[in-house]
Amino acid sequence: MSDANDAGLALKPKWDAHGLITAVASDAATGDLLMVAHMNADALAVTLATGEAHYWSRSRQELWHKGATSGSTQRVVELRIDCDQDAIWLKVEPAGPACHTGEQSCFYRVVTPTGLVHG
Amino acid sequence: MSDANDAGLALKPKWDAHGLITAVASDAATGDLLMVAHMNADALAVTLATGEAHYWSRSRQELWHKGATSGSTQRVVELRIDCDQDAIWLKVEPAGPACHTGEQSCFYRVVTPTGLVHG
Repeated sequence: MSDANDAGLALKPKWDAHGLITAVASDAATGDLLMVAHMNADALAVTLATGEAHYWSRSRQELWHKGATSGSTQRVVELRIDCDQDAIWLKVEPAGPACHTGEQSCFYRVVTPTGLVHG
Repeated sequence: MSDANDAGLALKPKWDAHGLITAVASDAATGDLLMVAHMNADALAVTLATGEAHYWSRSRQELWHKGATSGSTQRVVELRIDCDQDAIWLKVEPAGPACHTGEQSCFYRVVTPTGLVHG
């Protein structure tokens, strides 16, 4: 399973067939997972350049500056990439709820053997 | 963007065209992201039934009991699902390194504007 991406120090994202990698944002202060989204090369470049999280919106097929309309921007504290460079982890300081439902995190429900529990 | 999945308490994963959802594992003690993988319905059911993380290996096209060969199993402390139920978050107690490289986390490199930095 090893390849050059595992040990190298060159940023070479392994884009999928749609030109995307998985982007996972967590709260830098609490460690809570906030959301799972996607980035294309443009979103990654703009995120690095501005220090604010930008994603690729698959539904709208456009660059998505998180919080541009809602105000819930995400300041990037640290960006990490995984071994095979097909997933990126953003530790962020969120200015507001990450979720479109108004919840702080999209992961507001616990999975139990008998269903979901809010909280 | 809202739909019945957002507010409901029924577990109804939104499987993709390959029958998968994204699965993100973090260390329950430290909050560190460990790995991003995938689950199919079987992997999710077996994870819930056993309390140990099971994924779907896309490369091997088989159910993957994490740590079955390496010993680095992951005991599930909590399982959460996101608003549209296409991503699942596992908080785990890892028995060893999550990454096939031997690193504790697959996210062992920081992305900087000039390249990757180990650490």
